[in-house]
Amino acid sequence: MGIRDVCDRPKNTNVRCRLPAVCFVWQLSMIILFGVFVRYNEESDTHWVDYRKGNNITSDIENDFYFRYPSFQDVHVMIFVGFGFLMTFLKRYSFGAMGFNFLIAAFGIQWALLMQGWFHSLDYTDGKIKIGVENLINADFCVAGCLIAYGAVLGKVSPVQLLVMTLFGITLFAVEEYIILNVLHAKDAGGSMVIHTFGAYYGLSISWVLYRPSLDKSNHLNGSVYHSDVFAMIGTLFLWMFWPSFNSAIADHGDGQHRAAINTYLALASTVLTTVAISSLFEKTGKLDMVHIQNSTLAGGVAVGTAAEFMLSPYGSLIVGFFCGIISTMGYNHFSPFLEEKLKIQDTCGVHNLHAMPGVIGGIVGAISAAAATNTVYGDLGLENTFDFTGPFAKRVPTIQGGFQAAGLCVALCFGIGGGIFVGLVLKLPIWGDPADENCFDDEIYWETCIKATELNMHREQ
Amino acid sequence: MGIRDVCDRPKNTNVRCRLPAVCFVWQLSMIILFGVFVRYNEESDTHWVDYRKGNNITSDIENDFYFRYPSFQDVHVMIFVGFGFLMTFLKRYSFGAMGFNFLIAAFGIQWALLMQGWFHSLDYTDGKIKIGVENLINADFCVAGCLIAYGAVLGKVSPVQLLVMTLFGITLFAVEEYIILNVLHAKDAGGSMVIHTFGAYYGLSISWVLYRPSLDKSNHLNGSVYHSDVFAMIGTLFLWMFWPSFNSAIADHGDGQHRAAINTYLALASTVLTTVAISSLFEKTGKLDMVHIQNSTLAGGVAVGTAAEFMLSPYGSLIVGFFCGIISTMGYNHFSPFLEEKLKIQDTCGVHNLHAMPGVIGGIVGAISAAAATNTVYGDLGLENTFDFTGPFAKRVPTIQGGFQAAGLCVALCFGIGGGIFVGLVLKLPIWGDPADENCFDDEIYWETCIKATELNMHREQ
Amino acid sequence: MGIRDVCDRPKNTNVRCRLPAVCFVWQLSMIILFGVFVRYNEESDTHWVDYRKGNNITSDIENDFYFRYPSFQDVHVMIFVGFGFLMTFLKRYSFGAMGFNFLIAAFGIQWALLMQGWFHSLDYTDGKIKIGVENLINADFCVAGCLIAYGAVLGKVSPVQLLVMTLFGITLFAVEEYIILNVLHAKDAGGSMVIHTFGAYYGLSISWVLYRPSLDKSNHLNGSVYHSDVFAMIGTLFLWMFWPSFNSAIADHGDGQHRAAINTYLALASTVLTTVAISSLFEKTGKLDMVHIQNSTLAGGVAVGTAAEFMLSPYGSLIVGFFCGIISTMGYNHFSPFLEEKLKIQDTCGVHNLHAMPGVIGGIVGAISAAAATNTVYGDLGLENTFDFTGPFAKRVPTIQGGFQAAGLCVALCFGIGGGIFVGLVLKLPIWGDPADENCFDDEIYWETCIKATELNMHREQ
Repeated sequence: MGIRDVCDRPKNTNVRCRLPAVCFVWQLSMIILFGVFVRYNEESDTHWVDYRKGNNITSDIENDFYFRYPSFQDVHVMIFVGFGFLMTFLKRYSFGAMGFNFLIAAFGIQWALLMQGWFHSLDYTDGKIKIGVENLINADFCVAGCLIAYGAVLGKVSPVQLLVMTLFGITLFAVEEYIILNVLHAKDAGGSMVIHTFGAYYGLSISWVLYRPSLDKSNHLNGSVYHSDVFAMIGTLFLWMFWPSFNSAIADHGDGQHRAAINTYLALASTVLTTVAISSLFEKTGKLDMVHIQNSTLAGGVAVGTAAEFMLSPYGSLIVGFFCGIISTMGYNHFSPFLEEKLKIQDTCGVHNLHAMPGVIGGIVGAISAAAATNTVYGDLGLENTFDFTGPFAKRVPTIQGGFQAAGLCVALCFGIGGGIFVGLVLKLPIWGDPADENCFDDEIYWETCIKATELNMHREQ
Repeated sequence: MGIRDVCDRPKNTNVRCRLPAVCFVWQLSMIILFGVFVRYNEESDTHWVDYRKGNNITSDIENDFYFRYPSFQDVHVMIFVGFGFLMTFLKRYSFGAMGFNFLIAAFGIQWALLMQGWFHSLDYTDGKIKIGVENLINADFCVAGCLIAYGAVLGKVSPVQLLVMTLFGITLFAVEEYIILNVLHAKDAGGSMVIHTFGAYYGLSISWVLYRPSLDKSNHLNGSVYHSDVFAMIGTLFLWMFWPSFNSAIADHGDGQHRAAINTYLALASTVLTTVAISSLFEKTGKLDMVHIQNSTLAGGVAVGTAAEFMLSPYGSLIVGFFCGIISTMGYNHFSPFLEEKLKIQDTCGVHNLHAMPGVIGGIVGAISAAAATNTVYGDLGLENTFDFTGPFAKRVPTIQGGFQAAGLCVALCFGIGGGIFVGLVLKLPIWGDPADENCFDDEIYWETCIKATELNMHREQ
Repeated sequence: MGIRDVCDRPKNTNVRCRLPAVCFVWQLSMIILFGVFVRYNEESDTHWVDYRKGNNITSDIENDFYFRYPSFQDVHVMIFVGFGFLMTFLKRYSFGAMGFNFLIAAFGIQWALLMQGWFHSLDYTDGKIKIGVENLINADFCVAGCLIAYGAVLGKVSPVQLLVMTLFGITLFAVEEYIILNVLHAKDAGGSMVIHTFGAYYGLSISWVLYRPSLDKSNHLNGSVYHSDVFAMIGTLFLWMFWPSFNSAIADHGDGQHRAAINTYLALASTVLTTVAISSLFEKTGKLDMVHIQNSTLAGGVAVGTAAEFMLSPYGSLIVGFFCGIISTMGYNHFSPFLEEKLKIQDTCGVHNLHAMPGVIGGIVGAISAAAATNTVYGDLGLENTFDFTGPFAKRVPTIQGGFQAAGLCVALCFGIGGGIFVGLVLKLPIWGDPADENCFDDEIYWETCIKATELNMHREQ
């Protein structure tokens, strides 16, 4: 029996042994690894009171907690409610969208704390990872990459596959992030490259490997109903509103966080208008399409991620948002069908339009604005602070920095595509309980529901 | 062909050219104006590090960002999710409620940054507007006025009309705000006068000019279904919960923000009980009406806006909330039908009960509590800080301040009513693509939807 | 006519006189009591500027408002949206779930400010309660206990009963809290004992006294539909995301809040995986059950409440979450039917699995980790700060503290069960307008709805 036969045998979507087994094994591993490696850092440990005195810190308010916790909670909402609800637009996959999003994220943040901890927060004196609120934010960011990837394969994979995809995704993310931020010393406050470009191409590559030629058998479920579109708008709006917190959450204290929030706020506002314009322009009678409003309005936030902390200028942010709204909306109208028909990439949520293209634009904008940075605009100290031209990088100049930013974008692309193809091949093994082509986009497969035949018929009619 | 004939010709709701054109023109104008005028202020610029040293600021935590950003995000949620979802109660206008709310707000905040910037944040040394987080909050506030106005005309106008209404609304708002806050030197932390009174009368006047005698042709869609009422409660609750942030967002650092939050929290709690009481009292069998719970519970937050920062006392806040719950709920039962039948004002969301009356009450409460302020209660320094009796206003006393507060209320009313009538006449021109009387409250006109005849029939039956 | 006859006469659910009367009387009482007793504290009063100077506080940012307001708003969202939407899962009780939750909470926070104020914030120099942001958080916490109790009786009581239940619940809570936190000097930052154990047993005892043998007459409404499960997930996710704020909101400034947030974040993440594992394991084909995802995923946050502020270690938090996910999910599968059939406790939302068992576990974890605290781990000053071993408790040692923690758990249990039985008997009086057995779980009784026969039939079919 060849590999092809194995792959083509009837699907068994009973995950009763596999799902609990994977959850238990992974959670137990997390407990053991956390027991060996993870401790509180000096700001979350009871010794903070001594640390404060030793470092002449006048007030508890200077604990990093108070600089970052409000932004952390906003990011947290984006991860769980934002991404979760954005994907509820399918008429019969709302449970899977929210529930598996929840599962992926809850596992991912633990694994991310470890992976990122080893690279960034390891205390070499005792071999422990010391965590504080900034680690929590970074773990949420790391998970965002995997949730973006989930958007590309939404409705076509099993929860076991998603957990495998997350395990590999977080691992790849941490390595890629280390290379981009530490080795290349590129800046990427809002993660246009590190999170969005990587995450989107990771998901798209997996989707390409898992291509389903007969997916149209599930066509009657691959769409929205009125109420599911309203639910999806909850996700859109929480992502849109809290994106300034996303891009500013780990920016420099003081002006860095302040400026990142302003730039993102403006880019997003601009995107909404061009999204509406293009959406209306390409429909026969000028009607708006909810798919565009739900997704393309967010493209400006993605594209301004890398440069959010830079002196992009308020009008610079508006310009970035302006073009991303146009490109993303046109992507839904023209590029998504091309991707599916010619490149065999089935992209359920259109992450190519929302994350991949704007992410790449964001990387390019970041490289250009870094290369164009001058002492006149930034001030001597400001330039040094913004780009961390200190220590081994003390002699780097903006033009060189621009080059390294561009290199960072390439690294993100390579990790996304390469990693996605590898993980896609792993997920193609016929052991993960994925649904048959005629059962995609259907909560019935993995969820206890109380839907009677009549109700289903009603939805088929629509 | 007379003007009447032009106005009465069959409606053309195809906005395929007009909507994109308006969006593009306005967004491009924003980019150009931002390019000419808008820059970062000293707290969001990379020169902050020099500014900090120059002003002996010991820590980055004293950047205004950390005083105001959490409140800003709460206000942001109120604008986009709060107002957006509050209006989803109509059975077939949820897309329009959320989507056009989104569009208005995204455009409005840009235009508000400019208009308010010219009046309040212009740096006369270089002719630039310098923006920081407080400007973002004020822009959101400014937009709130227009979204309140949208509530009065919900379902009866086209998105093009809404964009025109927003352009004028923001402009009028900025002028009115300048007169009230700067010329009259009235205080209005939560905007009872500046935001709510102005916004509500602006919307009601527009609705009066655009009166539709045959609106009952759309009666079958002018109501809620079970799920749409649940969606609307998302809006209600986020508005209710974050209202303390709204009223305290731009209050004075320290005790000012603290006190404004407490007063608002208490006023809102009190309002809920009297709303429930009156709602139950006026139904035959004591049943509660969702319309009241969704709207009148918020009236206390509106009415405590002006006085939120004052020493209103906890029980004073409860009393304000107590009466507003009663007045607002009785407004829905008795005053709204009167407005529609006698005054020809069709007020879809009942903004007269939620914003107009409580806003006027708020202005009066503010005037009285300002006039009654004493050194004994406030302390010498406290009185000076709270009312900004400094510079040219150093000699003003509380009783005089009370008079100027009352004058401020009149200004808000005049701008609301006068501006609304003017803009209403502009919107009456038959070029904006508004729906016919039988197509009001229907997403079908401006949105791609997948609603089949059967589903619509089901909703007609209800 | 005996008492039995009185209790068994046909139900009259017309609350037209009773509900408004109770609302008015209680709100007026609040106004009078606030007038007599409640004033601003030194951080929310205009004299703050003098207080600052007198206490050498360098910046307004050290006002407690900036330490706690972001957490307060998160807690506020949990109370109103979190609890409110979590209970919307019933197909025809979403209005009651959100609306009565809103009513209970709005009344409860006022009464809690008074009750807790008398015990904790009374200024003996002038006999006034001085309130600030910490009081608002504590009032929200206090209300949480009553909302947990509401979960046990959801759909089976009238709003009048709920207001009575809240009046007594808040009173009992304040006394119990005073005994546990002040007399026993136990620590309970996240309220595992004070809030969850008390609240859950209070509700379960009431439900036991109000046992309805014929509740199966309402069986057709005692379940969810697809969309109501999605609404409930809004509640779940906001509770889950903001739980770190809940457990850290009133923890010590600096490392205390920081550590409590980290511990809670980790415990909750761990719970999600074991909940999914057990949910899948106990269904025939490995499908997941929304009831588990909506509820059991939160158990870790409950169980880590008491010990959140302690040096529980990151892996300690994961272990607590691990077991609570298992126990809570198995509770839904095995213990809830036993409770209903054998113990005659009808627990609509399964608060026994979500709050009671995890709350008790939390109390035990707290006692053990307090008893195990050492100077080596905490540092001398850290130990003193964390457990407040100052003043009359300066000589207490960790092992003794562990004993007092355990005693605190017993107090919470006694108050919950004893208080619940007493209040249950009060609520059994036939004067409160509760629904008949065949009208439970139905919004029709207390809400104006527009549901036609056809729609209801459709739902009965499901």
